[in-house]
Parts: sequence; structure tokens; C-alpha cells
Amino acid sequence: MEAQPGRDRILFTPGPLTTSLTVKQAMLRDLGSRDAEFMAIVAEIRDRLMRLAGARKESGWEAVLMQGSGTFAIESVISSLVPSGGKLLIAINGAYGERAAKIAAKHGIETVPVRSSEREPIDVDAVEAAIEQSSGITHVFAVACETTTGVDNAAQRLSTITNRRGLAYVVDAMSSFGGMPLDIEDAGYDVVISSSNKCLEGVPGFGFVIGRRDMLEAAEGNARTVSLDLAEQWRALEETGQFRFTPPTHAIVAFRQALLELEEEGGIPARWKRYQANHETLVSGMRRMRFREVVAPEHQSPIITTFHYPTGQRFSFEAFYQLLNGRGFVIYPGKLGETECFRIGTIGRIFPADVEALLVTIREALDEMGVSDGA
Amino acid sequence: MEAQPGRDRILFTPGPLTTSLTVKQAMLRDLGSRDAEFMAIVAEIRDRLMRLAGARKESGWEAVLMQGSGTFAIESVISSLVPSGGKLLIAINGAYGERAAKIAAKHGIETVPVRSSEREPIDVDAVEAAIEQSSGITHVFAVACETTTGVDNAAQRLSTITNRRGLAYVVDAMSSFGGMPLDIEDAGYDVVISSSNKCLEGVPGFGFVIGRRDMLEAAEGNARTVSLDLAEQWRALEETGQFRFTPPTHAIVAFRQALLELEEEGGIPARWKRYQANHETLVSGMRRMRFREVVAPEHQSPIITTFHYPTGQRFSFEAFYQLLNGRGFVIYPGKLGETECFRIGTIGRIFPADVEALLVTIREALDEMGVSDGA
Repeated sequence: MEAQPGRDRILFTPGPLTTSLTVKQAMLRDLGSRDAEFMAIVAEIRDRLMRLAGARKESGWEAVLMQGSGTFAIESVISSLVPSGGKLLIAINGAYGERAAKIAAKHGIETVPVRSSEREPIDVDAVEAAIEQSSGITHVFAVACETTTGVDNAAQRLSTITNRRGLAYVVDAMSSFGGMPLDIEDAGYDVVISSSNKCLEGVPGFGFVIGRRDMLEAAEGNARTVSLDLAEQWRALEETGQFRFTPPTHAIVAFRQALLELEEEGGIPARWKRYQANHETLVSGMRRMRFREVVAPEHQSPIITTFHYPTGQRFSFEAFYQLLNGRGFVIYPGKLGETECFRIGTIGRIFPADVEALLVTIREALDEMGVSDGA
Repeated sequence: MEAQPGRDRILFTPGPLTTSLTVKQAMLRDLGSRDAEFMAIVAEIRDRLMRLAGARKESGWEAVLMQGSGTFAIESVISSLVPSGGKLLIAINGAYGERAAKIAAKHGIETVPVRSSEREPIDVDAVEAAIEQSSGITHVFAVACETTTGVDNAAQRLSTITNRRGLAYVVDAMSSFGGMPLDIEDAGYDVVISSSNKCLEGVPGFGFVIGRRDMLEAAEGNARTVSLDLAEQWRALEETGQFRFTPPTHAIVAFRQALLELEEEGGIPARWKRYQANHETLVSGMRRMRFREVVAPEHQSPIITTFHYPTGQRFSFEAFYQLLNGRGFVIYPGKLGETECFRIGTIGRIFPADVEALLVTIREALDEMGVSDGA
């Protein structure tokens, strides 16, 4: 298929994503960051996020927005909630677990990394063994869906262990929040982190944290930074309705619109269904071209899927990427050290018909490259 | 004047500001953050920022963008560039100098605060005396234009002192960069910090730093955080053309448009002239209503102006603010501890005619409040 001049490429990536025109049009306004109209939007967003997570204020939950990318929100949580003398276990099966470990190390936080295969969900038994062996662990961190591969970590499997021992359980749900069902209490999480430009289909500019109020209260004075001080950020939002420092007003107004559109779509269950349909369309089409997935179907999330390069053929990912790009489709490189692979995301304002168009274009690109199939 | 339904209020604040419709319309696109088209925009922005500051790559200058608000960029500089064992003198005459001191303290950086009156430019003699008295100072930090009052600190006055002694001179030009002329070499600055949503008239979402390459190179490994690591951020932008972590793609695309519109306007000299005209229109109109400025005219920047409350009259700022707000104008509260005052900004996509409309509305609001004049 030919490129469509004057139209943006469709983003089959882990984010920033393709968003609806109406979400972007919500940004055609300039609101004062300390004006009542904007403050009401921030309050509405915090409220809606809580409801999406099944978190109620009466039950002790709070929602905090944090400027910057998702990583800023992750660093905000780690550097604010883990006290001096705290000890953080990090279940790692990909780049995002590693990044959390890097953040903890940077802040001098004692860390127990528990590494397991990138192709499998985190190893619950290994985490439990590490907790038993290492005394003094106070916090446990896991990634819900590792964007490195697209593996669904089924992170709620860890919560019986953390809850039984009274450990704080922090879940990086960056790439899955809003795209897969979550009831924060049922899942046994204490803190969940995500960002504006993933499954909630807003534009990038801030992250958010839903967590237990008592942990935010206990974090008072813990923070290792000023900008990323989660407790102070929460306190300001609660007491003044305002951000401490200039918020990305346009991205926030767009996010409110994105949350309204999520509701119109039928909430998280309907969006999850769409993402699953996108993913199933992708995988069955790729399999027809004999591409093989890196993650087994039973552990695969509908967020992003990793495919092996075709073997025994002259396959250049760079050429493949450029051919798709020239025809209006953006895919994503792989992130697995030894394994040659690429990724295709299926979240954002995209539909099975878009995936079908991508598949046709992949076939054309392979033909042009003289690659017979993906195997 | 009546409110204009369906139209945004005009923002007479220090930012976020009123921007052009075309700047906002630039956000009606979704670009992949690792795609060539976006990377080219980032490169163009870095290049244009350098030129606006009179900083050339051949002379050892670099431009780095940092996600978050301006404060994030300030924290990025302080926590990345001042090494362990470094000592930071901070010239303070307002809230933004105090904030820098708070940031330095949070990172355990030894700090020498030199405080002077908020109504006057920073005290150069006191800074020099402090440098002589306190051994081991490595870095000096000053705010170019203190938004607390609108005082122009004429920060270049410090550079003969810092340059003679070989101290790194970091200037927070948050509210003035792009709105007042600057040649970074002539001014004798080593690092300048500002953000997307001030005089360059973009939307909020990121800050930027223009600084000497050797300082960025020397900062390798210094950083106290991962997200705000300025040296790593620079390294990634140089080596890959990409941000390390998701950038606010829409705000960045809008910023490119804002820089094009600055050029169309005639560059910084023309914008400065417009801001001066806005400021002069404001001050002469406010004086006709017998409002008094807090800062003497010779120290006043054209960015934002602080006015005393009317004395001896029943003046409620809250009522005044709401009356103006209901008629389509947003002004700003004061930030001086003991002095009752409010602020009116004159930057952003606003023109003397907008200021005239504000003045008429202020007169109406005062009449409605039964306040005879500003004295």
C-alpha cells in the first residue's frame, strides 16, 4: 500500500501512540494552570483514574499525577516511597525491571534483584525464596506487562506473598493500565504506576500513581528530589488543587478527553476486547507469513508482540522498517540482547482493520526485499 | 467587558501562556518518538535554541531538552553539574532563587545562599564578598528575571566575577529567554536554563538547557537521579537523536512551530519590543488608575509586573480576580510574604490591544467593587 501524504503514519509501537483526533483537538486551548477551570479538570482526572483502578478514597486510596515520562513517575515512586533503610526487591524479566533497579541504585536504595527469563512471566517462587533468604525487605516492585517482550507477568500472583508478609507491593502497569482489567484491591497492589500515553490513549507529558494514602503520608520527607517528590505532589494537589510546578496543561486537557472516550467505548472491558482483537488479527496474519512469536501464547499480553527475524534469509530490519514507514506504518525494534527480533504494538486508537492493512503492507515489503516468509 | 463564551481567557500570567492557534494546531499529529521525522524536529529545535542564545557548536556549546516543567530542568542542572564536593553559591532575591537552594539542599550539595531584597536586583557586591569569604565555591547560580516580582536581575553583572575566578555560572532564564536579548558568550554565562512555555510561546511539557560541552562531559556520572541526568540526556540526544525516555511529542512539535513564529515575528528583538509595548501599555494604564508598582522602573523587566493592593480601601484580590476571570482575563496573585500585591504578566501571544482591553476591564471591576482607585 502506498504512503498517504498529509496523513500521519499509524503507530504500532508501545507509545507515544496514535490517538483520536478529538483527543488532540482538546489541546486547542490555553488554560491557566492555577485557574479554576483547569483545577476542576485535574480533579476530574484524578477521580476517574481512581475509578478505573477500582480504588476508592473511602478505602484509603489516592491518585497523583507527575510531570514527565512514565520513567519520571517510576523514579518518583521509588525515590519517595522507599525510606532510608528500606530494602527493595525487584522482580526483573526485561528492560523495565532493570531500569527500576538502576533507579533504586542511583538513590542508594538497597536492592534485591530477582532475575528470570525475559520470555517467561516473573518467577514467583524465586521471588518468595529471595524474600525468605534476604531479611529486611520492605518493598517489592514488579512490572505488570514487560514491554521488552510483551509478556504478561500476571503480577497479581505476587500479592499473596507481599500481603502475607506486610510488604508494600509496587506495580509498574505502564503499558497495560486501562488496556487490561484491574481491580487494585483484588489484585493486592499497594501502588500502581502508569502514564498518559499508553492504553488510556492520551498524549505524552505526564505519568500517574494510584496508591495507598498511608504510604504517601509515611513518605513525607523521604524524597531524594524536589521535582519528583510524590508526597509533596500529592499534598499540593489535595490542599490546593494545583500542581507545585507548571503542569503540561494541554496534555492534561487531552487526557480528560481521552478518559471520556474510554467511557464512551465501554470502559476497560471494551478496550481490552479491541486490543485483543488487534492482537489476534496481528498474530494470525503474521503466522500465515510464518513469523514466530518470542513469547508463548499463554503468557502473551495483547499490548505488544515480539517476533523473531526470519531465519536463513537476508532480512534487514532497517530496510523492513523503512519500507513500512514509507507506506505509513511505524513498527518498533526489538530489545532482547541475543535474540534478533522486532516488536509490533497493538494499542492506541487503532482497530483490526488497521492491523489488516499493516499485514498486507508487511507482505508487500517482504516481497520487495525478496524474503519469502518469516520462518 | 463581558466574558466571551467559547473563547479562552487571555492569560496575563507568568505561564502557561496564551499561545497562537497555529502553535496549538501543530499538536494535531501523532509522531513516533523514535521515528526519523520526529528526530529531525528535535534536532532542528536544538539548533534553533543554540542560535537564539548565540551559542555555536564550534565554540563548545550544546542544547539539551528535558521533560517536565522548568523546575525539572533546574533540578537536572543542579543535580547533574555540581559534582560531589562542589559548592554552589546561589544569589537569592525571590522564590525561584529559594527553590534552587531547596533543590541543592535536597541533593546534599553544599550551598552558600546570598540573599538580598526582593524588590532590587541581586546584590553583586554581596555575592563577591561571599565568594571571597567562603573558600571552595565551584558554581554560581542566579535567576535572570525573578518572576516573584518581575525584577530584571541584570545577571550578566555577575559574570566578570565568576569568569575571573573560573567559577561555573548557571543562569535560570526561565521567564526571560526569548523575550529579552541574550548573547550567551557576551553575557559570560556557562549554562542557561529555560522552558517551552515562556517567552518562546510554546506549550508546557519540557525545559531546555544551553551549556558548555565540557561541563556536560565533566558531569558524566555526577547525576543524583536517572530521569534528570542531564549528561546522559545530552549523550543520548547526540548519539541517537532520541530521548532516553518518552518525550512530550506534541509539545515538542508545537515548540518547533513556536520557534518558526518567533522568526516570522522578527526574532527576539521584535518580540522584546512587543513585550515592552505590552508592559508600557499596562504600567501607564495602571498608573492612571493610581496603582503603584513594587519594583522601580529602572529594575523592572517587561515580563511580569507586581502591583500593590490599593491601600485604605476594601480591596479583595479574590473578588477582583473573579471579576476579571468572568470577563475573560486571568491575572496572577502576588508572592511576596509581607507585601500585599498581585501580578500581571505581559508575555505570550498577547498584544497592546489585549492589555488595553484588560485595563478597561480592571476599571470596570474596581467600579463594581466600589474601589475608587489603586492608591
